[in-house]
Amino acid sequence: MGTELVGEFIGTLILVLLGDGIVAGNLLKGTKSNGAGWLSITIGWGIAVTLGALASGYMSPAHLNPAVTIAFAIEGSTPWSSVIPYTIAQMLGAFLGAVLVWVQYKPHFDVTEDSSAILGTFATGPEIYNTVSNFIGELLGTFVLMFGILSFSKYDIAPGLSTICVGILIIGIGLSLGGTTGYAINPARDLGPRIAHAILPIKQKRDSDWGYSWIPVLAPIVGAALAALVFGIIN
Amino acid sequence: MGTELVGEFIGTLILVLLGDGIVAGNLLKGTKSNGAGWLSITIGWGIAVTLGALASGYMSPAHLNPAVTIAFAIEGSTPWSSVIPYTIAQMLGAFLGAVLVWVQYKPHFDVTEDSSAILGTFATGPEIYNTVSNFIGELLGTFVLMFGILSFSKYDIAPGLSTICVGILIIGIGLSLGGTTGYAINPARDLGPRIAHAILPIKQKRDSDWGYSWIPVLAPIVGAALAALVFGIIN
Amino acid sequence: MGTELVGEFIGTLILVLLGDGIVAGNLLKGTKSNGAGWLSITIGWGIAVTLGALASGYMSPAHLNPAVTIAFAIEGSTPWSSVIPYTIAQMLGAFLGAVLVWVQYKPHFDVTEDSSAILGTFATGPEIYNTVSNFIGELLGTFVLMFGILSFSKYDIAPGLSTICVGILIIGIGLSLGGTTGYAINPARDLGPRIAHAILPIKQKRDSDWGYSWIPVLAPIVGAALAALVFGIIN
Amino acid sequence: MGTELVGEFIGTLILVLLGDGIVAGNLLKGTKSNGAGWLSITIGWGIAVTLGALASGYMSPAHLNPAVTIAFAIEGSTPWSSVIPYTIAQMLGAFLGAVLVWVQYKPHFDVTEDSSAILGTFATGPEIYNTVSNFIGELLGTFVLMFGILSFSKYDIAPGLSTICVGILIIGIGLSLGGTTGYAINPARDLGPRIAHAILPIKQKRDSDWGYSWIPVLAPIVGAALAALVFGIIN
Repeated sequence: MGTELVGEFIGTLILVLLGDGIVAGNLLKGTKSNGAGWLSITIGWGIAVTLGALASGYMSPAHLNPAVTIAFAIEGSTPWSSVIPYTIAQMLGAFLGAVLVWVQYKPHFDVTEDSSAILGTFATGPEIYNTVSNFIGELLGTFVLMFGILSFSKYDIAPGLSTICVGILIIGIGLSLGGTTGYAINPARDLGPRIAHAILPIKQKRDSDWGYSWIPVLAPIVGAALAALVFGIIN
Repeated sequence: MGTELVGEFIGTLILVLLGDGIVAGNLLKGTKSNGAGWLSITIGWGIAVTLGALASGYMSPAHLNPAVTIAFAIEGSTPWSSVIPYTIAQMLGAFLGAVLVWVQYKPHFDVTEDSSAILGTFATGPEIYNTVSNFIGELLGTFVLMFGILSFSKYDIAPGLSTICVGILIIGIGLSLGGTTGYAINPARDLGPRIAHAILPIKQKRDSDWGYSWIPVLAPIVGAALAALVFGIIN
Repeated sequence: MGTELVGEFIGTLILVLLGDGIVAGNLLKGTKSNGAGWLSITIGWGIAVTLGALASGYMSPAHLNPAVTIAFAIEGSTPWSSVIPYTIAQMLGAFLGAVLVWVQYKPHFDVTEDSSAILGTFATGPEIYNTVSNFIGELLGTFVLMFGILSFSKYDIAPGLSTICVGILIIGIGLSLGGTTGYAINPARDLGPRIAHAILPIKQKRDSDWGYSWIPVLAPIVGAALAALVFGIIN
Repeated sequence: MGTELVGEFIGTLILVLLGDGIVAGNLLKGTKSNGAGWLSITIGWGIAVTLGALASGYMSPAHLNPAVTIAFAIEGSTPWSSVIPYTIAQMLGAFLGAVLVWVQYKPHFDVTEDSSAILGTFATGPEIYNTVSNFIGELLGTFVLMFGILSFSKYDIAPGLSTICVGILIIGIGLSLGGTTGYAINPARDLGPRIAHAILPIKQKRDSDWGYSWIPVLAPIVGAALAALVFGIIN
C-alpha cells in the first residue's frame, strides 16, 4: 500500500499546486495572469486534475479526492480499509500543494490587500451564503463528477485520453455548476488548503471561514456516494 | 429498449444540466462565472454534449436529440418505432436537467431582475427576430451537426475520442453559427427547458416566448433530415 | 476522381462556412458572439479545419487548400494533374461557404454599418499595409502549416486524432502568426469569399480590396512549396 | 547524431517562433491579437511546444530545452556527451525563432513605443523583482515540467496524444505557475531570444535585462535536475 499512498499524496499535491495556482494567478495583485477570467480558472483546474492523475496513476488509483475514494468503496473497487489512509495522504498532499502556491506567489501575496481574495486562493466560498443551496450545489457537482468517472469506466478509453476525459469533466463541472460555490467537489482540496491558510504567516489574513468549511467536506461525500448508489441501480 | 430509454434520458439530463448551467453561470447576477463570455458558453455546451454522450453511450446510441433520432431513422440506423419513445425520454431528461439548473442557481435566480436573461438560461431566442432567417439559422446549424456526425461514422475513431469529436463539433457550431439564434439545434434541449421555465415558480419571470418556440423544434428536424438525405446521396 | 472533387468541395465549404462564420459572429453588430475575441476566432478556425477535414477525408486527401495541393504535388503524393481540378473544387466550396455565412448572418449584415468589418467576414486584410511584410507574413504562416502537415505524416497518429492535430496547428498559427495579416494561408479560403463579397448584394459594401488580394493567393503557394522543398532536403 | 541535432534545432525554432509569436501578438501595437489575454498566451505556448515536438520527434528526442536534456542525462536516457551539442542546437533554434518573430511582426515592432513590451516578446521577466522568489518560481515550474514528462513515460500513450499531453502540461504550468515570472522554464527559450533582442536593430529598444537573465537559465536546470532525482527516488 505504500506506493499507492505515495501516488495519492503526489497526485493531490500537484492537483492543488496547479489548481490553487490558477486561482492565485487570477486573484492576487500584480500577476501577469491577474483577471484572466473564469474560463482560464476552469481550464486550469481541469488540467490540474489531468496532470495530478497522470503523475500518480501508475502508482495508485489516482482518486485524489476522499469523496471519490469513499464512493469507490461503496461501489466495491476500493477496500474500505483504504479509505482512511488514502484520505490522509490526499489531505497531506493538498496541504503541501497549498503551501507551495504560497511560496510561488509570495511577493504577490505580500502586496495583495484583499484578504477574501487571499482566502479564495486557498479554499472555496460561495458568492451567496445559503446553507441549503450551497450544500446542494457541492452535492450536485460531485454527483456529476462521480457519475462521470463511473460512466467512463464503461468504455475502453486509451491511456492518456482517459485522464484527459476526466480533465474535461472537471472543466465542464466548473463552467456549468461552479459559479455558485466555487466547486470544491473534493474535501481534501478544500480542507487541506484551508488549514494551510490558517497556519501560514500570511500578511493580510482574514479568518479561514470555518463556519462554511464543513459544506465542501460533507456535501461532496454525500454527492459522490449518491452517484455510486444511483449508478449501481442503473447498471 | 428500457436501457436505451434510460440512456437517452440520463444523457439528455446531463446535457441540459451542464449546457443550461453554463448559460446560467454567465447570465445570472452575482455568480463567479458572470460574463465569462461566448467562448466559455460554447466550450461549456461542447463539454455538456461530450459528457452527456459518455454518460449514456454504453446504454443507448446517445442521440440526446430528437432531430438526430429522426435523421438516423431516415438514414436507417434507428428503427422508426424508436423515434417517439426516444423523443419522450429526451424531453423528460431535458426538462429535469433544466429544473436542476434552477435548483443549483436558486439564490442567483432570486436576485436576477432581468427576466429575459432568466428565460435565456432555459431556452434559446434570437438576437434579431426574423422568422425566415431564424429558421434558416437553426436549420443550417443542425445540418452541420448531423452531417458531421454522419461523417465521423466513416472513420474508426477510438472510444472517448469519438465523443470528444462530437463535442468539438458542437463548439464549432456554437462559435461559428450560434451567434444569431443561440443554436438550439435540438428540439428537446429547447422545448423541455422552456416548459420548465413556464412551470417553475421563478421570481422575476417573463412569458416563455411561445411565439418563437416552434422554430427551435421544427428547424432542427428539417436540418438534420436534410443532412441525412444529402449524406445519403453523396455516399 | 469525382469522389475526390466532391470531398475537396464539401470540406472547403464547411471550412469556410465555419471559419468565416466565427469572424462574422465576432465582427457583425448585435450577435451574441460579438467581440468574443481573438482566442475564439483562432479556436473557431482550428475547429473549422478539423471538421472540414473530417467531412471530406474519407473521400479525398482533404487538402482544402490549393497551396497544400501544390506542395503535395511537389512532394510527390498528389499527381500534378490533380492540381487544377482540386483548386476549382476548393474555390467553389470556399465561395459557397461564404455565401452561406451571409445567409446565416443576413439580419446582422443588414444592421452593420462598418463596411471594413463586413469585408473582414469574407476575406483577410492586414492591420498595417506593407507589401513585403504582408507577403512574408502569409508565406511564413503557410510554411509552418505545410511543414507541420508533413511532419505529422511521420507518425502513426490515430484517425480523428490526426485531424485534431491539424486543427491544433491552425490554432497555433492563428494565435502566434495571425495577428498581422489575419492568416489566410490558403488561396481558396481568401479568394473564394472575396469573390462572394464582390458579387453578393450586401447593403453596406465597400470595395473588395483587390489591390491586396494577390498576397493571400501567391504568398501561401510560395510558403507551402518552400516547406515541401525544405522538408524534402531534411528527410 | 546529425539528425538528432537537426531535430532539436528545428523543434526549438518552431517552439520559439510560435511561443514568442503569441506574446508579440498580444503585446505589440496594432495587431489583431492585441490584448488577447493570458489564456491565449498559455494556450499559444502549449501549442508551440506540441508542434515543436511533433516537428522534431521523428528525428530527435524533442527535448527542445537544455534543462530537460540535462535531466534526462541524470536520469540516464540521454548520454552526457549529448548535452553540449543538444544545447547548442536548441540555442541556435531559439535564436533564429526569435529573429523570425521579429521579421513576422516587423511593422508592429516599428510602431510600438513600449520598450519593455518589446523585450517581453523576446525574453521573460518577473512582475516583481525578487531574486529568491523568482528563482524558486522558475525552479518549481521546471520541476513540474520535468516531473510531468517523466510521469508520462510510465504510460503507453499513443503517438500524437503524448505530445498533446506535453502541450497540456505547458498550458497548466503557464496558467497556474506562470503569472509571476512568465515561466521561461527553459534556458534556450529565454537566452536565445534575449541575445536576438540584444543584436537585432529594433527601433524602440531598451537594455536586454542581463541582470535577470541568469535566473531563467540556472533555475530551470536546477528544477529539472531535482525532478529527475526525486522521480528516481520514488520509482
